[in-house]
Amino acid sequence: MRKRIPTATTKRLPLYHEYISRMEAEGSKWVSSFMIANALGLTPSTIRQDLKHFETIESSSFGYSTKSLKKVLENALGVTTGANMVLVGVGRLGMAIVHHKKFREKGFVIKGLFDVNEDLIGKRICNVPIYPLGRLPEIVKKKRITIGIVTTPVESAQYVTDLLVDANIKGIWNFVPINLRVPPNVAIENVNLCPSLFLLAFRIKLLEEMP
Amino acid sequence: MRKRIPTATTKRLPLYHEYISRMEAEGSKWVSSFMIANALGLTPSTIRQDLKHFETIESSSFGYSTKSLKKVLENALGVTTGANMVLVGVGRLGMAIVHHKKFREKGFVIKGLFDVNEDLIGKRICNVPIYPLGRLPEIVKKKRITIGIVTTPVESAQYVTDLLVDANIKGIWNFVPINLRVPPNVAIENVNLCPSLFLLAFRIKLLEEMP
Repeated sequence: MRKRIPTATTKRLPLYHEYISRMEAEGSKWVSSFMIANALGLTPSTIRQDLKHFETIESSSFGYSTKSLKKVLENALGVTTGANMVLVGVGRLGMAIVHHKKFREKGFVIKGLFDVNEDLIGKRICNVPIYPLGRLPEIVKKKRITIGIVTTPVESAQYVTDLLVDANIKGIWNFVPINLRVPPNVAIENVNLCPSLFLLAFRIKLLEEMP
Repeated sequence: MRKRIPTATTKRLPLYHEYISRMEAEGSKWVSSFMIANALGLTPSTIRQDLKHFETIESSSFGYSTKSLKKVLENALGVTTGANMVLVGVGRLGMAIVHHKKFREKGFVIKGLFDVNEDLIGKRICNVPIYPLGRLPEIVKKKRITIGIVTTPVESAQYVTDLLVDANIKGIWNFVPINLRVPPNVAIENVNLCPSLFLLAFRIKLLEEMP
């Protein structure tokens, strides 16, 4: 079925998914095409046309069912199968990510941690073992790892990324605020919290301007 | 000047800002309306119409200057002035956020930390003092705090949010994966890393499907 979905629609799916996740977190049971359009700066008819490609979305006079739409989008995005991941850089941020339960619930499981700190190697965090960096190629292969999470200091981030790429990782989830170079066959997603904070500042400004 | 910008355009500005920040991080000097449109599922003409409201964006035959466009958007979003913030919940994630330097560079400064752990109170992290929760109203008032960052355990998040709201905070930056209730005059932004991870998984899928 995915073959027939136009490219333009495909590109909008992650946007829809992010919006729906937000709405679900806020407790909304239904979302209308008007609400989605309004939030994303699109037209309601674009939303309706796009979502027509998915026949199984539950809807009512209130709009689409948030839960059903989220599920359909996750299927279309191919994120329902999850992935095995490793995390490199067991600092404060790395620790916080390992303790986060949400990814695991979705099938995205951290199978190994890597650090250069000798004191950490051999220990476990949330039952995930910490390995020396030298064992990365072996573990990635053995545990069928597809995603590498980079939470190292800035200075080591490119070196670690190169190691991950050489170990045939398929995607890099980068938490380090620099531009990492990866070959075109490797996907990369940079986490940047600034836009989220700026959006909050913008919302505060809009509220202050209200009569 | 902002008065004349249509609401629909205003709603798209945070999307543009997020895209531009990403492009800047990836080292792009120029972005075209076609690139922005393509990434966000909009039409190039919508982008051009929207950005016409800002006369000072530097452009060339390659498109808009990334740096100039980012600056103009940040002005329009009202995020150039920054804000004073407090953080409640000095755990792993809280610590990681305090150590993050990017917000401070943009004028968003954490002025106080709060926790219930007696062992932490009186200490400093990155030179920011940790106070007992009871001092929150006083510190928020004295230091002109407008944003409260919530990084507590799930169980305490709503209680802490209520304290922040009662202390006349204007916005909540929520890192806890639950739906917090705030009155309509308080802005809220929920940080959720799942969409970012799903986007990575989606990109990997697209790369795998390529011939």
